[in-house]
Amino acid sequence: MIVRTLDEITDTAADIKTENWRSKRIILARDRVGFSLHETTLYAGTESEFCYQNHIEAVWVIEGEGEIEDLGTGEVYELRPGSIYLLNDHDRHRVRPRTDLRVACVFNPPVTGREVHDENGVYPVVTLEEAEAIEAAEAAETSTPAGSSE
Amino acid sequence: MIVRTLDEITDTAADIKTENWRSKRIILARDRVGFSLHETTLYAGTESEFCYQNHIEAVWVIEGEGEIEDLGTGEVYELRPGSIYLLNDHDRHRVRPRTDLRVACVFNPPVTGREVHDENGVYPVVTLEEAEAIEAAEAAETSTPAGSSE
Repeated sequence: MIVRTLDEITDTAADIKTENWRSKRIILARDRVGFSLHETTLYAGTESEFCYQNHIEAVWVIEGEGEIEDLGTGEVYELRPGSIYLLNDHDRHRVRPRTDLRVACVFNPPVTGREVHDENGVYPVVTLEEAEAIEAAEAAETSTPAGSSE
Repeated sequence: MIVRTLDEITDTAADIKTENWRSKRIILARDRVGFSLHETTLYAGTESEFCYQNHIEAVWVIEGEGEIEDLGTGEVYELRPGSIYLLNDHDRHRVRPRTDLRVACVFNPPVTGREVHDENGVYPVVTLEEAEAIEAAEAAETSTPAGSSE
């Protein structure tokens, strides 16, 4: 059993901050449970476009209000506490929070925490092995004496 | 894209009510996304023992307070908004909510909605095919004229 708190995640590498949103990754690929679980806050008045070509995402609104537009169909849906949207078809979509929107997100395959949205709001696939290699490389870099060129 | 609300799920077959808890299944195996997502309320003052021998479960406390005991180690952890526990090792555990405890649960493999906790608090594995067969049989039963013995 693993027990954590959101407070422990706050301001760590698993707490991703951007201009439009902030996402605390509660459970990641390294936990090896087949999904990742995030608490994400999308900021009031922003507009964000996303399309997860390589992931399925479920989003459950815990707090706040706004709307989501399915960019494939043009349909717009209201979001309020208790709203759920499931991007089961890699749907391109735009989210417009009217207030700060706090949501629970589940990703399959799990996010490693090393993905960065590209210019299309797409997450690339990063395997757990790749993420671990990045982390190992960073750790090696950190432990290299200052001034070393290697 | 699939859009739902918790209100739509309330009092349907996906809203499971027991003496100690109630669980609204937001996303189930039939959605074919590789996980299920539930809003569960564990009632104040109750004590429930669970052990998911066939599933991994992540639980995130949204509202309320209580404690969880890892029955393998005897360790007790406080639960409050922002607490997360991950039953990554099919851990036998007991939950004691002091207030109503509203939690988000993610299951892998996804729950079909046809599982019933047995006397040990265990969910059996029910495949999507089995769940669909049960649903088809129920639908056939419903459509059988009253009084028919077939």
